[in-house]
Amino acid sequence: MEKEILPEALHKAIEHISKLPGYGEKSAQKFVENLLKLPKGESIDTIRALLDMLNKINPCKECGLLTEHEICNICSDENRDKSIICVVEESFDAFAIEKTGKFKGVYHVLHGRLSPLEGITEKDLNIPSLVKRAEKATEIIIATNPTIEGEATSTYIYNLLKNKDIEISRIAYGLPFGASLENADTFTLSKALEGKRRI
Amino acid sequence: MEKEILPEALHKAIEHISKLPGYGEKSAQKFVENLLKLPKGESIDTIRALLDMLNKINPCKECGLLTEHEICNICSDENRDKSIICVVEESFDAFAIEKTGKFKGVYHVLHGRLSPLEGITEKDLNIPSLVKRAEKATEIIIATNPTIEGEATSTYIYNLLKNKDIEISRIAYGLPFGASLENADTFTLSKALEGKRRI
Repeated sequence: MEKEILPEALHKAIEHISKLPGYGEKSAQKFVENLLKLPKGESIDTIRALLDMLNKINPCKECGLLTEHEICNICSDENRDKSIICVVEESFDAFAIEKTGKFKGVYHVLHGRLSPLEGITEKDLNIPSLVKRAEKATEIIIATNPTIEGEATSTYIYNLLKNKDIEISRIAYGLPFGASLENADTFTLSKALEGKRRI
Repeated sequence: MEKEILPEALHKAIEHISKLPGYGEKSAQKFVENLLKLPKGESIDTIRALLDMLNKINPCKECGLLTEHEICNICSDENRDKSIICVVEESFDAFAIEKTGKFKGVYHVLHGRLSPLEGITEKDLNIPSLVKRAEKATEIIIATNPTIEGEATSTYIYNLLKNKDIEISRIAYGLPFGASLENADTFTLSKALEGKRRI
């Protein structure tokens, strides 16, 4: 939308939002339009919540997980097994795993994945501190996403750590619960067959 | 995502964004995740732009269009023909029409459409001031969206104004049924304006 047609403050807000990954001009416009439609108190509260988040949330100094503290609740929890490290691409991946309640170790957040196409190399990822943390670990579970980039990242980390005395595993590939075999892609089905376990 | 897993400030931000129309928990999560990934300066600037917008933008006292002033640039422009009023559902519909450069009258923003299913009645729309403004008008172009609700709103306004000495027309169907005015391309919008018909 041309600058001269929209009021300046509206134009600027749309411009900022449209720079977020996944947003274009139209979706940014929809976002601010919806925000403006909220009762004034609610919209201000929403912005305050975002500002509060930006001010309070930072990566844990130990594992990189988004937290309000210097060291996250998981790293500072004495009941978590510090010798088992689960490596994830993003904090929300760790939060998703937490939701299962099945993992009692700690995390390591890479803040991304290797992606030559996007120009993301190992230098852009939280890898040096993983190598350091791995010294004290007995087990590393690599839980990067099951994508080309996630696999490449997993292989890179495996090669970095394979000569150390650590058990390194990769989160299992298979059919997602509720999926239909008929519609699964060949790669997933092959992996599901390879990973078969006795019942 | 459970409250106890996410840091409080993160949870609150997601909760607020997920209340926006069109957002769910996952899309709200993606929004804050992307915001947190921006360099700190940029994310703060984004929030400032939103706050600035909320503080500065309000509906024009005359026509309801989003503006930074008490009276919008269009209503206060002496070159615009105040006797021709184009009735739209939302401000962004008017901005889209402005982009065609084909309309030299003024607007009237309803801030919505009649929608019994959503419980939106004529009392929720900016209609009383339209009736008042119509006293001084010679022509009303109803440019509500070409949807069931937009048509119902158009008919309602037509019935309100039909006994006055005003030419009332409906924006032409150059638009596919079910489309949104806001997202229409400039050419289609121009054609729709040119093809307006008396009701």
